[in-house]
Amino acid sequence: MAKVADKYFKADEWKVIEEGFNPDYGEVSESIFSLGNEYLGARGYFDEGYSGSKLIGSYFNGIYEMTKPEYGHYKGIADFTEFMVNSVDWLYTRIEIDGEQLDLATSEFEDFVREIDMKTGILTRSFVWKTKSGKRLAVKFERFVSMTQVKRTTQKITIKPIGFSGEIYITSGLDFSQIHRNERKNLWDCKPGTIEKGEDIFMGIDGTTINTKLKVYSSCKVNAEYESLEEVNEEKIVAVKLKANLEDGKDYVLTKVTNNVTLRDDGDLAVYDKEVEAVKSETETACTLYDKLEKENIDWWKKVWDSSDITIANDPENQQGIRFCIFQMYQTYHGAVEGTNIGAKGLTGEAYNGNAFWDTETYCLPFFIFNNQEAARNLLYFRYKTLDEARKRAEVLDCKGAFYPIATISGRECCNLWQHASLQLQASTAVAYGVWFYEKMFDDKDFLKKYGLEMLIEISRMLATRGDFNREGKYGYYCVMGPDEFQMMVHNNSYTNYMAKFTLEYTLDKINEIKSEDPDAYKKVAEKVAFDESEMDTWKNIKDNMILLYDDKTKLFEQHDGFFKLPHLDVDSIPISDFPLYDNWSYDRIYRNDMIKQPDVLMFMLLFISKFSQEQLKANYEYYEPCCIHESSLSPSVHSILASQLKKDDEAYDFFGFATRLDLDNYNRNTNQGIHTTSIAAAWMNIVYGFGGLRSDGEKLSVAPSIPKNWGGYSFNISYKGVVIEIKVDKENVYIKTKGDGVVELNVYGKNVEINSEGYKCEVE
Amino acid sequence: MAKVADKYFKADEWKVIEEGFNPDYGEVSESIFSLGNEYLGARGYFDEGYSGSKLIGSYFNGIYEMTKPEYGHYKGIADFTEFMVNSVDWLYTRIEIDGEQLDLATSEFEDFVREIDMKTGILTRSFVWKTKSGKRLAVKFERFVSMTQVKRTTQKITIKPIGFSGEIYITSGLDFSQIHRNERKNLWDCKPGTIEKGEDIFMGIDGTTINTKLKVYSSCKVNAEYESLEEVNEEKIVAVKLKANLEDGKDYVLTKVTNNVTLRDDGDLAVYDKEVEAVKSETETACTLYDKLEKENIDWWKKVWDSSDITIANDPENQQGIRFCIFQMYQTYHGAVEGTNIGAKGLTGEAYNGNAFWDTETYCLPFFIFNNQEAARNLLYFRYKTLDEARKRAEVLDCKGAFYPIATISGRECCNLWQHASLQLQASTAVAYGVWFYEKMFDDKDFLKKYGLEMLIEISRMLATRGDFNREGKYGYYCVMGPDEFQMMVHNNSYTNYMAKFTLEYTLDKINEIKSEDPDAYKKVAEKVAFDESEMDTWKNIKDNMILLYDDKTKLFEQHDGFFKLPHLDVDSIPISDFPLYDNWSYDRIYRNDMIKQPDVLMFMLLFISKFSQEQLKANYEYYEPCCIHESSLSPSVHSILASQLKKDDEAYDFFGFATRLDLDNYNRNTNQGIHTTSIAAAWMNIVYGFGGLRSDGEKLSVAPSIPKNWGGYSFNISYKGVVIEIKVDKENVYIKTKGDGVVELNVYGKNVEINSEGYKCEVE
Repeated sequence: MAKVADKYFKADEWKVIEEGFNPDYGEVSESIFSLGNEYLGARGYFDEGYSGSKLIGSYFNGIYEMTKPEYGHYKGIADFTEFMVNSVDWLYTRIEIDGEQLDLATSEFEDFVREIDMKTGILTRSFVWKTKSGKRLAVKFERFVSMTQVKRTTQKITIKPIGFSGEIYITSGLDFSQIHRNERKNLWDCKPGTIEKGEDIFMGIDGTTINTKLKVYSSCKVNAEYESLEEVNEEKIVAVKLKANLEDGKDYVLTKVTNNVTLRDDGDLAVYDKEVEAVKSETETACTLYDKLEKENIDWWKKVWDSSDITIANDPENQQGIRFCIFQMYQTYHGAVEGTNIGAKGLTGEAYNGNAFWDTETYCLPFFIFNNQEAARNLLYFRYKTLDEARKRAEVLDCKGAFYPIATISGRECCNLWQHASLQLQASTAVAYGVWFYEKMFDDKDFLKKYGLEMLIEISRMLATRGDFNREGKYGYYCVMGPDEFQMMVHNNSYTNYMAKFTLEYTLDKINEIKSEDPDAYKKVAEKVAFDESEMDTWKNIKDNMILLYDDKTKLFEQHDGFFKLPHLDVDSIPISDFPLYDNWSYDRIYRNDMIKQPDVLMFMLLFISKFSQEQLKANYEYYEPCCIHESSLSPSVHSILASQLKKDDEAYDFFGFATRLDLDNYNRNTNQGIHTTSIAAAWMNIVYGFGGLRSDGEKLSVAPSIPKNWGGYSFNISYKGVVIEIKVDKENVYIKTKGDGVVELNVYGKNVEINSEGYKCEVE
Repeated sequence: MAKVADKYFKADEWKVIEEGFNPDYGEVSESIFSLGNEYLGARGYFDEGYSGSKLIGSYFNGIYEMTKPEYGHYKGIADFTEFMVNSVDWLYTRIEIDGEQLDLATSEFEDFVREIDMKTGILTRSFVWKTKSGKRLAVKFERFVSMTQVKRTTQKITIKPIGFSGEIYITSGLDFSQIHRNERKNLWDCKPGTIEKGEDIFMGIDGTTINTKLKVYSSCKVNAEYESLEEVNEEKIVAVKLKANLEDGKDYVLTKVTNNVTLRDDGDLAVYDKEVEAVKSETETACTLYDKLEKENIDWWKKVWDSSDITIANDPENQQGIRFCIFQMYQTYHGAVEGTNIGAKGLTGEAYNGNAFWDTETYCLPFFIFNNQEAARNLLYFRYKTLDEARKRAEVLDCKGAFYPIATISGRECCNLWQHASLQLQASTAVAYGVWFYEKMFDDKDFLKKYGLEMLIEISRMLATRGDFNREGKYGYYCVMGPDEFQMMVHNNSYTNYMAKFTLEYTLDKINEIKSEDPDAYKKVAEKVAFDESEMDTWKNIKDNMILLYDDKTKLFEQHDGFFKLPHLDVDSIPISDFPLYDNWSYDRIYRNDMIKQPDVLMFMLLFISKFSQEQLKANYEYYEPCCIHESSLSPSVHSILASQLKKDDEAYDFFGFATRLDLDNYNRNTNQGIHTTSIAAAWMNIVYGFGGLRSDGEKLSVAPSIPKNWGGYSFNISYKGVVIEIKVDKENVYIKTKGDGVVELNVYGKNVEINSEGYKCEVE
């Protein structure tokens, strides 16, 4: 791997710390210090404004805008896109002394420290401001987003004059005027804001997106002492400018709590209006609320760490890295907001438009399956909620059934690169995989009957019409793009064919099972989708004749028809300056050789790892790993897990380092655009499946831990059958116990073991 | 072939006649009755305006506009396009009597006849207008575009009142206000027009394109009697409204001659300005000019038909069809305007944006080679003139040398579908083919040394960097699209590899030849392009190791790696309502089977037909013809020629019918968008190469005529070595003679024969 770390943040087991501010890393830090609670997210931008390079990004899950196509195009090519739209800056602040506005791009300052405490979710930033007029002030900003009352966010500003007393002007408010970067324009219509002065200053402003007509009503209560107040009248902004007196050596504190009500496309305007009215008449004060929310947050995060922490001894960088991953996963999604999904960058930036991909089921779902059943179920429910859109998409692609979008917010296909949107079937097969995984782990037949079976039937219908029989009567998929996006328009991609076969088999199984066990439930679904049982014969024929390019002699799956005949490219010969290739290589050049972007054959082998022999895994790993350029951030973790399985411990560890610290060390040089949220989920898998050796696709849940040689030990937890299991590994031993009273069966190094709170111990193999 | 004729025009050997006007065919007729002289072209729209469906289209070769890209994109993807822009309506006329404006969409009329006389190039339209006030007038419009003074166009309007005398209002002028249909807006900035009243009324108006800043100065002289004159003041229009008196039974005549000066991107503003000034001081009157130009035109066309006519006995429809083709070829291009090319629709419509494709060298060049050397040379010179753009294009595609655009006006790549622009190498190899063909026929070493060699070297450099060696050391092209655009991103397309090998071989030959015969000329080129002779070793290695997917047992070339393994689609099973497939099928569905759009393997076999045995031709024809859906209008002629070669006479004749009457019978249902100009060239090839059995790729020029069974006879002429040869074929015999004094050697049915003006006769074999 040609990629190297770009170290900037200080290593700490529980915190991410930036000591001193380097403007070159400004937007990287904004991404790293993003806060989110699934409902909303905001980048770690400077509250007080900043004239340097920045992205003042504030986002709400499900609040999106769309581009309008100018002209129609070929059938099946999406000619619009949806994107999570940059919304209200609820941290909007300006600070002025002696006519100088605080701006870290132009003001003089020292002792800059910014840190996020992952134990509590509180972000702080402090520095000493040295004004041009010669004054010194200790300035501190705190903020957090509430994990318990997700519409609420907070801000506290503390200013202490050092060696003087005097006037200060502080502007505080809500700002809808930000530019959405990708579109280069602001996308909000706003009513004029309202300001009411009481014990707190109350401000509220109502914004509506221009094209999609979704809404955000943002309001805040500001508590601060002031001498006089001036209303700020700017378009799309509601704010007050306070004149206050600072007293030497004494903290001046401004406390702000906001409440953000949204109207999503599945929302009800009357409910929204009512909620907005309720907000206006709330009586709790900013300071009371702040303290209460802070306490709730600390408790909330404590519970998270109690059940989901991963510890690593003797490796503070990876310890920090993995905790950062877990922290970001919970910030992005924990099942609080039904019907939403996980954008590729979470709520931390505008790259990938806030769209959700097949990453959700393939990379994120395991984390939630083993940490939060409700969240896992809600993620799958998103696919059911958007099944009608997938049906429409199948129709426009001349298929039957349902074709899930490769990128989406609303359920519609938002990817307007047809070569991805029309050729990638993995979003659809990933839904089937997700249903299978969820059912396997939770045996939730209710979900299956209500939602799962209907999705499976529709996906199978698509799979039975998108492919074709060749002249020998074998079935395959032509003109597809597998997970490896560097092989664009190929035939019989092994991943696609394998997953299609799996989907058809699983669907047939579940139809038969539900039909026999609960005929009424079956009948209901069958009638709803006008299911004709002869379809099952077709599916059986297809799956039985599915082309799988496997050679028993070499044990190799060929990635697609003709892959082995492609010119070979030595990926190590590519100069670092050529990355990212999409930016530096002629578009078509990327596709003309056997370089692969991310695991493809290795991907389905990982998803169903128990089905493959060590010999098969080894042959394919050794063939494909050297072809892989890891241009997808999802790639290294998969390789790490497989390397662990193959006892290639050094490789496993090297790939792992990339995974946990991908963003902290900006390996891909694009953390400025936002956190690689779905890769973060892969990092979690990397430890649990890789070093922990967790296997969830076989008959029994199993673990087979190994330990990297420079670790003193590590531990992780998984929730399984309602019980939290703690697995600790040190140099010699594995210790497994349940937290609480539960008892579960686990297969440890191939041996079935009953685990209880007393614990089980064995040697590391 | 699923395509069927839509008969509308009356068959006539020298004319195309429309009797009665059916508005449903309005735009088809506009295309069919287009006039052009290479410098400019105008659709056959109604002079007097028309409120029904229409495309008032007036175009100038080389006067184009471009779209501005909104955002950048991947490297190598053209994010703008250039298009021949709809320009001044120099026929602008309005006619009014008793407050009723003549408008064939709303006015009552009878005896409508429109016809183009291909002998003279004069378009006439006449009808009797029955006004709402009860009057009857015989109205006749005539127009032609001058073939000798290409900036000039003419119009004559004759109006005869039947049974009354009275007032009439005629508006006449020049109108730059038309909308460019594809862009949905007008793209001209105009200065206010000028009007001068003298013996004629002189009007002039200067237009500049908004983005490209190209210019057209259009002026006219109008001669007509009038009682009073009113200047028309509308934006981008200069016109006069004349009030005149009609006298019962007497012709009222308006004569208009326009002069259109253009400033192209290779033009000089000072020259343009001077020319515009000169136009203003011209003294010849409209009527004098009209008569003179008319006479010149009749003479000009007579010469064309003397040297280029094709006659067919007993088949008036094909006789009309082939003359229409020849007529359109000469209208579109005859080498008058250096540095221009042939748009896919000529100058008759806006489809394909007026862009030129590889059709120029592959389909059009043979017509000019055998009819007009100067035109052939000028077409090739266009590629030299744009060589620098092709170099830039190669660079952006990460290749060395020159990569010719798949669609262009200025030489820049204008196709913003990357899958065509980046994957199709045939524009480049077609240039090499064109140079080879031209050299072979004319032995023009001067052209070769000045232009040809430099292009060949640069194309060869591209070919040596765009492809790659596979693991077995064989060379091929990966991720290409061959001529068959229904197989998109394939490896080792046989056409691409074959043509690349040919190009490299031919380039090596020519380098060696010129180096030995004219070392100075060689040195000049070599220095200019910094040629390193070691490149020749590389090219030799590449050509010697070029992958050609040929199986000597079956005699089949596989169209590309894996083509034979694709699912088979029975093209006859596609319902007619599915055509055109691009409009009705999901984009990717087109590519998932073995259907081909147009000849690919058969194409290179045709270009080098003498290199293949009858057995090889038969095997490949019989394999690929049934796969072909002929979605390209260029396809049937190729199949017809090969069918002739294989003595499949019925097939040859069936494909031929489609070719000559493609537009007259609107086979593809899109003649409304313009004439299929390059297909028209293919129709010419179809007779001469198909039935005439002309072969120009072997050692000697040869003919081997056959005759379709329902023809009484046919004849065609070819210019060869400066001599016009007439070849007449009847049921029994072939008669060949030179026109004039020349003597040439020809191979007839395999026998070398000397042809002189006395003639040679033999039996049809």
